[in-house]
Amino acid sequence: MPNQKLRVAIAGLGRMGKRHAANFALTPRVTVVAASTPDEREREWAAENLEGVKTYHDYEEMLEKEDLQAVVVASVTAVHAEQTLKAIEKGLHVLCEKPLSIDVGIAQSVVDAYNKSLQTHPDQKVMCGFSRRFDASYREAFARIAQGDYGQPVVFRSQTADLLDSSGFFVEYAKTSGGIFVDCSIHDIDLMLWFFGEDRQIKSLQAVGVAAVHPGLEISNDRDNALATIEFVGGRIASLYCSRMMAAGQEDTTEIICTKGSLRVNMEGRKNHVEIHDSMGARRELPQHYYERFREAFVTEALEFTACCLDNKPTPITLQSSVKAVTVGQALQRSLVTGEKLVFNEEGVVE
Amino acid sequence: MPNQKLRVAIAGLGRMGKRHAANFALTPRVTVVAASTPDEREREWAAENLEGVKTYHDYEEMLEKEDLQAVVVASVTAVHAEQTLKAIEKGLHVLCEKPLSIDVGIAQSVVDAYNKSLQTHPDQKVMCGFSRRFDASYREAFARIAQGDYGQPVVFRSQTADLLDSSGFFVEYAKTSGGIFVDCSIHDIDLMLWFFGEDRQIKSLQAVGVAAVHPGLEISNDRDNALATIEFVGGRIASLYCSRMMAAGQEDTTEIICTKGSLRVNMEGRKNHVEIHDSMGARRELPQHYYERFREAFVTEALEFTACCLDNKPTPITLQSSVKAVTVGQALQRSLVTGEKLVFNEEGVVE
Amino acid sequence: MPNQKLRVAIAGLGRMGKRHAANFALTPRVTVVAASTPDEREREWAAENLEGVKTYHDYEEMLEKEDLQAVVVASVTAVHAEQTLKAIEKGLHVLCEKPLSIDVGIAQSVVDAYNKSLQTHPDQKVMCGFSRRFDASYREAFARIAQGDYGQPVVFRSQTADLLDSSGFFVEYAKTSGGIFVDCSIHDIDLMLWFFGEDRQIKSLQAVGVAAVHPGLEISNDRDNALATIEFVGGRIASLYCSRMMAAGQEDTTEIICTKGSLRVNMEGRKNHVEIHDSMGARRELPQHYYERFREAFVTEALEFTACCLDNKPTPITLQSSVKAVTVGQALQRSLVTGEKLVFNEEGVVE
Amino acid sequence: MPNQKLRVAIAGLGRMGKRHAANFALTPRVTVVAASTPDEREREWAAENLEGVKTYHDYEEMLEKEDLQAVVVASVTAVHAEQTLKAIEKGLHVLCEKPLSIDVGIAQSVVDAYNKSLQTHPDQKVMCGFSRRFDASYREAFARIAQGDYGQPVVFRSQTADLLDSSGFFVEYAKTSGGIFVDCSIHDIDLMLWFFGEDRQIKSLQAVGVAAVHPGLEISNDRDNALATIEFVGGRIASLYCSRMMAAGQEDTTEIICTKGSLRVNMEGRKNHVEIHDSMGARRELPQHYYERFREAFVTEALEFTACCLDNKPTPITLQSSVKAVTVGQALQRSLVTGEKLVFNEEGVVE
Repeated sequence: MPNQKLRVAIAGLGRMGKRHAANFALTPRVTVVAASTPDEREREWAAENLEGVKTYHDYEEMLEKEDLQAVVVASVTAVHAEQTLKAIEKGLHVLCEKPLSIDVGIAQSVVDAYNKSLQTHPDQKVMCGFSRRFDASYREAFARIAQGDYGQPVVFRSQTADLLDSSGFFVEYAKTSGGIFVDCSIHDIDLMLWFFGEDRQIKSLQAVGVAAVHPGLEISNDRDNALATIEFVGGRIASLYCSRMMAAGQEDTTEIICTKGSLRVNMEGRKNHVEIHDSMGARRELPQHYYERFREAFVTEALEFTACCLDNKPTPITLQSSVKAVTVGQALQRSLVTGEKLVFNEEGVVE
Repeated sequence: MPNQKLRVAIAGLGRMGKRHAANFALTPRVTVVAASTPDEREREWAAENLEGVKTYHDYEEMLEKEDLQAVVVASVTAVHAEQTLKAIEKGLHVLCEKPLSIDVGIAQSVVDAYNKSLQTHPDQKVMCGFSRRFDASYREAFARIAQGDYGQPVVFRSQTADLLDSSGFFVEYAKTSGGIFVDCSIHDIDLMLWFFGEDRQIKSLQAVGVAAVHPGLEISNDRDNALATIEFVGGRIASLYCSRMMAAGQEDTTEIICTKGSLRVNMEGRKNHVEIHDSMGARRELPQHYYERFREAFVTEALEFTACCLDNKPTPITLQSSVKAVTVGQALQRSLVTGEKLVFNEEGVVE
Repeated sequence: MPNQKLRVAIAGLGRMGKRHAANFALTPRVTVVAASTPDEREREWAAENLEGVKTYHDYEEMLEKEDLQAVVVASVTAVHAEQTLKAIEKGLHVLCEKPLSIDVGIAQSVVDAYNKSLQTHPDQKVMCGFSRRFDASYREAFARIAQGDYGQPVVFRSQTADLLDSSGFFVEYAKTSGGIFVDCSIHDIDLMLWFFGEDRQIKSLQAVGVAAVHPGLEISNDRDNALATIEFVGGRIASLYCSRMMAAGQEDTTEIICTKGSLRVNMEGRKNHVEIHDSMGARRELPQHYYERFREAFVTEALEFTACCLDNKPTPITLQSSVKAVTVGQALQRSLVTGEKLVFNEEGVVE
Repeated sequence: MPNQKLRVAIAGLGRMGKRHAANFALTPRVTVVAASTPDEREREWAAENLEGVKTYHDYEEMLEKEDLQAVVVASVTAVHAEQTLKAIEKGLHVLCEKPLSIDVGIAQSVVDAYNKSLQTHPDQKVMCGFSRRFDASYREAFARIAQGDYGQPVVFRSQTADLLDSSGFFVEYAKTSGGIFVDCSIHDIDLMLWFFGEDRQIKSLQAVGVAAVHPGLEISNDRDNALATIEFVGGRIASLYCSRMMAAGQEDTTEIICTKGSLRVNMEGRKNHVEIHDSMGARRELPQHYYERFREAFVTEALEFTACCLDNKPTPITLQSSVKAVTVGQALQRSLVTGEKLVFNEEGVVE
């Protein structure tokens, strides 16, 4: 029914919350009815920019008072799990920004609650928003490999490399971010699980890193550049790189090397279609941040999540795989800090 | 006032009309209230896909019955001018798909009518939709040159090269298209006028061409590949290429060569961010058609046209320059057919 | 016989002469026995750098005293024809730098003398050195098209664009260079004849240009940027661009557009395999001059010319086609200066 | 003295030996006087192709009978060390193909012999030929970083990825190759030591790998794809990838990420300057093998090694660093096979 519109609320109106609010407002089958944030200036922004959207100081109050069908959780990571759980309890559909939690136990508790809720609300959708899964280029790469044109994927290489932030913000932020592998590499880990298969078991992993430009990170056991290798059962290996030190822009790249060909995504970053020739040579500018490159993927995410809810279709990402991504991120961070290679037994437990 | 919405009607629901309808429907400050098309299947499409939009068989009836503020003319080229004129008479804002008309006299009559109407409706906006002017890459190139970083623009080179259509449709279509320079190169001509200055006078132009894959075009005095050079007063020259014969995709490129540097737009076309490495080498796919490359520019066009109307701002493209683009296109087509170089005197008349 | 070595003399030891001397010295089947130049410093350079090579002030004296088989004419353009003629008279093989002459009549007289000489010296080889014909990339493009994989070539586009010379040298040099189309575009013209067929008749041509950064060029009827279109019998068209105003480096590019695909050569110039990412974005440097890009082609030219002489094989470029290249260059220059389109009748004469 | 020529012998006339023979024959300050190989067909090849070069069945006999100044050891890896040692004993300069030996102890014994020999032959030059150090692109990257424009290098990433060999040859070859890290990655390791500093101490390393297309490699404890991370004292980390499974060609890439910018070498491989546009999209071909990409580096190597010998200049690569490269390669191979992370103490010994 094209005429039926999904009644959506946005939790959190920070940087990502504003973007989700704008994207869902432009999603044809959606009515954004409410938004909540404890920040007064964000509520003022909503009053000016989100027409017909009621704003709340308190998330729970919003859930109680509004007649909602779905919630987009885009608040600070620390409350992702709690807000998602409360929406699950009310039988609402949830799109939660990544990660569910930087704590694997808490993340798993959300999945458990969802699985339980499904018994009474079999059509309820809960998904963690790994935006690159909605990017046209990643999808084309996945589809081509799935078609079998390039044989089996063997080596997965991926990086998330952010523009250097020289404001000092990042060192403070890192204290609660879960570490560079949970914060930066979580997308690469999610893609790795997608391309290699979410059920494929990890045999071992290890990581090394350095705090080259933000020495203050050492205090919170974090780094600004790190490298990892991961070994899977069945002859598949992966290499990850994460960095907070790029000079030119955001450089997120992925390469999937198969037995008969390889697919490369984003290897030649470019902000747009301009090339400048001057006395410096020939140059292009790069995207400066994640959203500049992946904005369209978020729009697609909003469209497809809406369709899943309204048409009762399975979500493209399972909630369990999002917990697995956090698990891998945490294990990499542990290896990074301890210097130990982690070897897993058949139950997926570190030996 | 963000709460005030522009009441828009769409005239024509063919390929471009459908796109404009979808884009305007997603423009936050717009309500699409009506659409007209003589084609029954298009009206059925509208009933299914355009929620709350009333459809009309007859354009004039729509103008009479609906309380409109603006019309998007996206019908067949032959009625662009007529429909625009009728909307102008009613004091409505108009966004007309390019070209206004393939006949310069008719195109100019629209500008004249608009100028007259402005005396009684000083805030009325009428603009011809040259989408590339709304493309982020072209805009960045323009802004960089305007800033003076690269000196004076001297040479402008641009091409519109479409994927080969082997269905035979094109030969039929060409009979009323105004010829390859009016149909294909009109965007390049508009960009040339934009980058060199709309008031810059042309000294001479000439064109040559060939019907290489569609010999049937010769009957309607048209070609499938053509080249032109244009000479401006004040030491500026331009080279245009248009083609209907591309094997890989749509290859629209532009290069603006200035005294101290050059800006290149679209020189390395790519459909998305995927590169494929297999036994053929390393390859990327190209956009297959114009809209695949420029979709976002149309969205921006809808946003900005709306803002011009609601906030009474000047349109980014003057209507007179759109007539000039047709004038140049027609002169190039005349040179193509006759083989003559056209030399203009100071009044802009062919000597 | 690999043991037989071609006894070669070099005429002229300016920039190109030194390069030819070095390349022929490293050609395994060659002994460079002598070199002539009126410039004392150049003879000193030869004494230091060309081991075992006797130097002469006078070209004719060298021809008389030395037991030569071949001469490489790399002197100033003004004596190309004269020196080539003298070597032809002596029955020597000649590799002459392009162009034979900037005067078509003189150039043709060399061909006539060679054809006459062939009656008594049937194995004599005389070739004008169009280096791009020996470049691996141009050869691959030619071979692919010749194989028929891409259908018929229809549109040829090529440019020679040199780095801006701000020393003022160029204005002086231009006085005797024959003009930008003879000096710069001669390579593009030669390639055009090669790809379209040397016997393919030209129907018309025209050119426009501007003196944007070297206004002094106007005095010698020259320009620093020029554009041309050329129309051939049989439905083939070409577009040429030449410039002396590039900011980033030498940008020589060629595109051959065929009915089923297109071949692009040098479209993404790069000095080497380095890409730099810094706060300016991602950039590569370009070759700064012709020889930096085409050095290897000159080495191949030396190797192959030697093989033609020693093994009595036909030269890859006919001498007549080199005269045709000058003819076309001169006609383009005439159109550039007069503003007239030149139309040729079936005898190749301007109507 | 340009007139003095270095008297060189080539040991081994297999694939690399032939190339070295040809390159040294074209090096102006060199006379190739002799060559040795146990293979009769290779001696026949030399008789036909190497003019004036005496061939020997026996290496030692050649050293005794010929009046040599330098030897190029290009024989099979198994005799590199032995032949180098014999030349050292005779006081000859030696350019030895990499690696000196796949056994660290043997490699070190060559360095020890050289150091001893230097006491009596202080001008003797012995160098292991790591060709990429002579490549213009790698050199430019090194020079730019050395200038300090990009701050400190922090992360080094490099790969050697060869075209898939489906002949089965490789599995046989691998039995004596020392393993994929010694055979393939040795260049990347050498570059890593160069860019990070040859004296920089390794803290830890680890590797994982898989035999995806050549399962037979498992028998000789080898793999066809492997990944490694290496951690250095002083906050530098490296990631290596080696593969024998590429579908499109040889893909050797290196990225040096510094605190203020990054240098990328070879990231966009291309065989030449041709781009093909057809129904598959836009594509370029890749180099098919190492020599196709690095031929010029070998020519430069010959030139510079010769200059070092004749002009008594230090070699650009120290012999000790070449042993260190083998040491790292062997340690990586050990980690690959055992699955253990190797941690080094301050003496560089595995704890």
